[in-house]
Amino acid sequence: MPDHKKMEATIHAYVDAFAKGSADAVAELFAEDCIVEDPVGTPPHKGLAAAKAFYAESMKTGAKLTLEGPIRLAQDYAVFPFSVKVDLGGTMHQIDVIDVMRFNEDNKIIEMRAFFGESNVKPL
Amino acid sequence: MPDHKKMEATIHAYVDAFAKGSADAVAELFAEDCIVEDPVGTPPHKGLAAAKAFYAESMKTGAKLTLEGPIRLAQDYAVFPFSVKVDLGGTMHQIDVIDVMRFNEDNKIIEMRAFFGESNVKPL
Repeated sequence: MPDHKKMEATIHAYVDAFAKGSADAVAELFAEDCIVEDPVGTPPHKGLAAAKAFYAESMKTGAKLTLEGPIRLAQDYAVFPFSVKVDLGGTMHQIDVIDVMRFNEDNKIIEMRAFFGESNVKPL
Repeated sequence: MPDHKKMEATIHAYVDAFAKGSADAVAELFAEDCIVEDPVGTPPHKGLAAAKAFYAESMKTGAKLTLEGPIRLAQDYAVFPFSVKVDLGGTMHQIDVIDVMRFNEDNKIIEMRAFFGESNVKPL
């Protein structure tokens, strides 16, 4: 079982990595054999190289994350609500998301699923 | 694909059912072949009869639910942060939870997973 304190620290490091715009810092948090599905319903990015490339692309938008409530820790899962502020076509938008992250024994993220849809994207 | 507006209405009906303490009202929202895992890591309740019995037992505690942010709608999933106010051993507590609910084509809940752990249970 992964360590809950380390999992919580990893979520904060994930948010901080977006603040810095560092795909390298995000990649350090994931396992080699991770799967990233963001948003749920789109083809998953399989493996660390694919995940890192996805994050590097995402960060080009300048997206910043803000936690919107406590991190829920259940077994090997960390689940948390957050908002993303991002420029979409010249207008700032807020996207409300919940990430479900599953950890392995080494406290690395092995699976990430981001839940949001059209109704969660609003102009600011 | 289930209907997002109906899914959202179902989540509000779920919260309202707890306010009324009605396991019958909750059971109407679930499919016959549903699975309820609450919290994640405990043995799942399989089928509508088992799920309804679980909810009837949960409601004996007088637990009330409050949504703590927007409902995230992604494909056939509705995911939402909420808090539960509940008397545990004579002291009121708040439990911070995120539910992941998956819907079937008939807009019924087919799978429910509740994410929270010890760190999410606090005396008020």
